[in-house]
Amino acid sequence: MVSGEQALIRRIAQRFGTVVPAGAMQVLESIGDDTAVLQAGGQTLLVTVDMLVEGVHFRLDWTAPHALGWKCLAVNLSDIASMGGTPVGALLSLALPAERVGEWLDAFVEGFAECGRTYGCALLGGDTNRSPLMVIDGMVLGTVAGAPVLRRGAQVGDWLLVTGTLGGSRAGLKVLESAIPAAERALWQDALEAHWRPLPRLTEGALARQAGVHAMMDLSDGLASDLPKLAEASAVGAVIWESALPIHPSARRWAEAHGENPALFALAGGEDYELLMSAPPKVARTLLERIPAETGTPLTAIGEVIEQRGIWLERSSGAREPLRVQGWDHFG
Amino acid sequence: MVSGEQALIRRIAQRFGTVVPAGAMQVLESIGDDTAVLQAGGQTLLVTVDMLVEGVHFRLDWTAPHALGWKCLAVNLSDIASMGGTPVGALLSLALPAERVGEWLDAFVEGFAECGRTYGCALLGGDTNRSPLMVIDGMVLGTVAGAPVLRRGAQVGDWLLVTGTLGGSRAGLKVLESAIPAAERALWQDALEAHWRPLPRLTEGALARQAGVHAMMDLSDGLASDLPKLAEASAVGAVIWESALPIHPSARRWAEAHGENPALFALAGGEDYELLMSAPPKVARTLLERIPAETGTPLTAIGEVIEQRGIWLERSSGAREPLRVQGWDHFG
Repeated sequence: MVSGEQALIRRIAQRFGTVVPAGAMQVLESIGDDTAVLQAGGQTLLVTVDMLVEGVHFRLDWTAPHALGWKCLAVNLSDIASMGGTPVGALLSLALPAERVGEWLDAFVEGFAECGRTYGCALLGGDTNRSPLMVIDGMVLGTVAGAPVLRRGAQVGDWLLVTGTLGGSRAGLKVLESAIPAAERALWQDALEAHWRPLPRLTEGALARQAGVHAMMDLSDGLASDLPKLAEASAVGAVIWESALPIHPSARRWAEAHGENPALFALAGGEDYELLMSAPPKVARTLLERIPAETGTPLTAIGEVIEQRGIWLERSSGAREPLRVQGWDHFG
Repeated sequence: MVSGEQALIRRIAQRFGTVVPAGAMQVLESIGDDTAVLQAGGQTLLVTVDMLVEGVHFRLDWTAPHALGWKCLAVNLSDIASMGGTPVGALLSLALPAERVGEWLDAFVEGFAECGRTYGCALLGGDTNRSPLMVIDGMVLGTVAGAPVLRRGAQVGDWLLVTGTLGGSRAGLKVLESAIPAAERALWQDALEAHWRPLPRLTEGALARQAGVHAMMDLSDGLASDLPKLAEASAVGAVIWESALPIHPSARRWAEAHGENPALFALAGGEDYELLMSAPPKVARTLLERIPAETGTPLTAIGEVIEQRGIWLERSSGAREPLRVQGWDHFG
């Protein structure tokens, strides 16, 4: 039996086998990175897809349709950002109950469109179907000038960098899961925002590619779950400096109020959609200046790439221990 | 309220508005045709998506996983065929119950892959999610040498042509819906095949494009539902010659055995995935020779394009009446 989503996708790819298309277009990367990479003439194309299932990825009573529309496009744009690419257009497939056609759908599309307008992504087409359960599948096509940044390029001695802060989305989810009265929710608005309205780091990803980062991916399942994918693809190990983790202020506040470890929010919290970069120190230093200056987005060095395989957590004492925290796994 | 899927997709597109991507790629066609059309450098790209929902598009007790996998890719390839294009690769998003991971999924992927190998379509990526209800979303990227054939090019005086035969898939569905004993099912094997295993008409579509057809689309919802889309997009009317309709032999046999009108199977039967072409008579005559000779697929002239708007059925008596049969509408 498969142990998780990664294994499942890999098994599907193995069973499918390799097919070389007859046409003029070459498939450079398929299963395994954030997006597929295709080459045609002088153009490099990126294609990515992300499916949201009611009750698994979202609850309709917790998520306003506008926010869901935004998120559905944003998570795909985040995959384009992680290759250092630029979006072109999106396809939207909707399976939805008949009673959602009307105001609900209008608000959903408005959120989807607002994200598209913000990041220059057109709507190319779609498919609508009735269904007792809501399932939303977004696909985005993008381009990249030059070579896209893959997961597998990390090298020993690289620094690990992350954009923004981590754990905010998980804190937002905790707020939704809790029985906090509506009036108190306002105190957690920024955590809810982080959960509902992730920001695809497109400019940041393009700057990182131009500067020459070795590897990049977006954090959808949580650092503890995503970093091993980058390290395994690159055949290296990695150390995370616990004290350096840029924990979202609301995540820290929530953790401290509930006797939880704030670092866990940054390590295991999924759906932050920040970028994780592996860059040689010189490139890292350039980016640590340029990205905050040019985009307003924080960038933090959180660790380094080492030869010894595995993912290690370095405590403030300097002691290293294997990282055991698990992120989100759809079939785990 | 919206009256059907076409109106729904149009409303989504209107609400989304027009976004011009920042990059080097131009969006030539988005919502409205079988596929989106993009232009980058000298390359024309086609992108299409089709979602299948358990209980709406398929029933797991009626459909073997291998057949479902084939169909999921074939219906998308049919959209590429309808533009005269060539497939490159597919993305596959799966929402499925945990108990389907294993033998069921293996067989599904094998069917999907068999279709990919047959028509030169690679697997580019995908997304897997657990879900109480099965939803399968397939997306295909293709290319086209020269200009793709759109729906809107039909001209008065064109002949209407269809590949293959019509109504077979509907007959297969009737067999499944009926309480026929398993032993008798063998008598309807070709109807079931038509329902389970549509053949994307890629070579036929490419020949039609090269020969210069004016407009083309694939028949997914049934001729009576699809022809109006082509006619409206082209601002023309159309006449169907009832006696010329190439009715699938099993559809005729089923209709006659059950006191139904065989022509209804050809007019209203969805999911045949044959190509409907609108071609000037000279091109039509060439194709009526070439397509059967070079592909083995029948091609039949079934009507003509006229100035008077609307869709008309011409009986064998010569009388014309408005076509009132409805095809499949997901939100009708």
